[in-house]
Amino acid sequence: MTPQQDPQIPDFDAVLAAAGRIKGHAHRTPVMRSRQADEAFGAQLFFKCENLQRAGAFKFRGAFNALSRFDAAQRRAGVVAFSSGNHGQAIALSARLLGMPATVVMPKDAPPAKVAATEGYGARVVLFDRFTEDREQIGRRLAEEQGLTLVSPFDHTDVIAGQGTAALELIEEVGPLDALFMPLGGGGLLAGSALVLGALAPQCRLYGVEPEAGNDGQQSLRAGHVVWIDVPRTIADGAQTPHIGERNFAIIRHAVSDILTASDAQLVEAMRFFAARMKLLVEPTGCLGFAGAQGLKETLRGQRVGVLLSGGNVDLRRFCELVAG
Amino acid sequence: MTPQQDPQIPDFDAVLAAAGRIKGHAHRTPVMRSRQADEAFGAQLFFKCENLQRAGAFKFRGAFNALSRFDAAQRRAGVVAFSSGNHGQAIALSARLLGMPATVVMPKDAPPAKVAATEGYGARVVLFDRFTEDREQIGRRLAEEQGLTLVSPFDHTDVIAGQGTAALELIEEVGPLDALFMPLGGGGLLAGSALVLGALAPQCRLYGVEPEAGNDGQQSLRAGHVVWIDVPRTIADGAQTPHIGERNFAIIRHAVSDILTASDAQLVEAMRFFAARMKLLVEPTGCLGFAGAQGLKETLRGQRVGVLLSGGNVDLRRFCELVAG
Repeated sequence: MTPQQDPQIPDFDAVLAAAGRIKGHAHRTPVMRSRQADEAFGAQLFFKCENLQRAGAFKFRGAFNALSRFDAAQRRAGVVAFSSGNHGQAIALSARLLGMPATVVMPKDAPPAKVAATEGYGARVVLFDRFTEDREQIGRRLAEEQGLTLVSPFDHTDVIAGQGTAALELIEEVGPLDALFMPLGGGGLLAGSALVLGALAPQCRLYGVEPEAGNDGQQSLRAGHVVWIDVPRTIADGAQTPHIGERNFAIIRHAVSDILTASDAQLVEAMRFFAARMKLLVEPTGCLGFAGAQGLKETLRGQRVGVLLSGGNVDLRRFCELVAG
Repeated sequence: MTPQQDPQIPDFDAVLAAAGRIKGHAHRTPVMRSRQADEAFGAQLFFKCENLQRAGAFKFRGAFNALSRFDAAQRRAGVVAFSSGNHGQAIALSARLLGMPATVVMPKDAPPAKVAATEGYGARVVLFDRFTEDREQIGRRLAEEQGLTLVSPFDHTDVIAGQGTAALELIEEVGPLDALFMPLGGGGLLAGSALVLGALAPQCRLYGVEPEAGNDGQQSLRAGHVVWIDVPRTIADGAQTPHIGERNFAIIRHAVSDILTASDAQLVEAMRFFAARMKLLVEPTGCLGFAGAQGLKETLRGQRVGVLLSGGNVDLRRFCELVAG
């Protein structure tokens, strides 16, 4: 069975349908340019600013799309998600907008600001000990016991389709691209983008970029199957995933030109660039695409290059420790 | 003679002409929204993001407009400007784009990064001792001796008309506003905006906001003439002007609803808000409009409120000292 025939794997039509569902709810985020970046690359760079998305990251697209498809019973019972980060906040905000209850499972040692933000969107937060308990198990138990619908942060058809809408907007706005770079964690964004490029820009090279310390995606691409690793130590907290999703990998493996890596030091350098030159706060994970593009700079000369900034959710104090340290 | 009849004072047509001249050179900067700000105000806020303008501030609009109007002889000889800040960089970049030489007079103790940025745009930098020398005199002497054309940072017809294009774009994009808040230093931005509101939105209240420590504009409005003060001590380095321009005051005095002030602490609070919530780096001066709006929050309930963020040129280390301190 090819990926396109598997009902669990979305296609480009699913991305178009998601674009219709999120319209008027998600921001159509701006595409920014930088003369300095263009000069440094000898190329035209187009930065899709998902750090300016609602709840601060592209995750809102997939979450809102998934929750929009709940039936009446699912809406009444509500959603459960396990995420200490952007997916949890995206689910909480989407649930509030759609008028359904949300439960978010977060580690006890999550930053209080993130817990407060999630509760601020009206979600119930369930804390767990991440050294002794398994968040997926807790999520599944809550789903079963309370009739909640679990929405995975990436390994989910509607989430993948929703994340694809960012690349769709980018191509719609700037036209043809020669290459597109984006962060890779669980693979929702990369898989959704692959569906878009496959339909609209099959000649455009697609790159996922991982933290150097957590190159499970690169390993998976080489091995031809999903490789699991230990939770990597990196400042890119949005890409600390131990493995790509199975659905995601099925889409990604034949669609990407390569999977690249970036070091924490390169991410900090990119954060400084975005703040000092483009006046944008980008979280470490959000800088992966740009850092990856820099590693391929020589191959991009004269080309039109898309770079997706995935999110801006970094505590200000932490941001300053990183960039001014 | 009313202001409208004085040939030295621009009118709305001059703003429209400036918009035509800067088109394709200046960025049409995005207008951003914030759900948090809307909820806090019980109003709709529209943030015009001139921190994302070329060279990092609205100043590029006026500088490019002024230099575009130079005749052939003026272009050959070049421009001179005295400014340690955004106007100097805007002049340097505009001159480079228009292929003319630029000289920028800056204090010896200006941050090396600002000197480097100005030189990076290809300008010649002339340093002076601001405790023993007068920058205006140096600028005028260079203009006379070398046949350069001096472009004042605010008290200049073409600069005022150029700065007005930011408010023009805002109104074009979001439609009618009930109130518009912006920083006030020398008055170029406020005067240019007054021309736009006078023509397109005469019912919209217009507010200039100054640093508490340097309320010369407020004093001028009360006195009915331009009041000079000592250079104020404030983190809003873009509004450390000792007086409003005469042309600017002639336009502003009958057009503004009021001139407000904001403390340094309020500016830091606004910087934190923009960074943490909107993922935007805004320099202290750029926060004046929002801080002023907060002081009038109760009067803005249910209204459509424009806020102009004037610039984003703050050294990262300095930014972090201020927001994380």
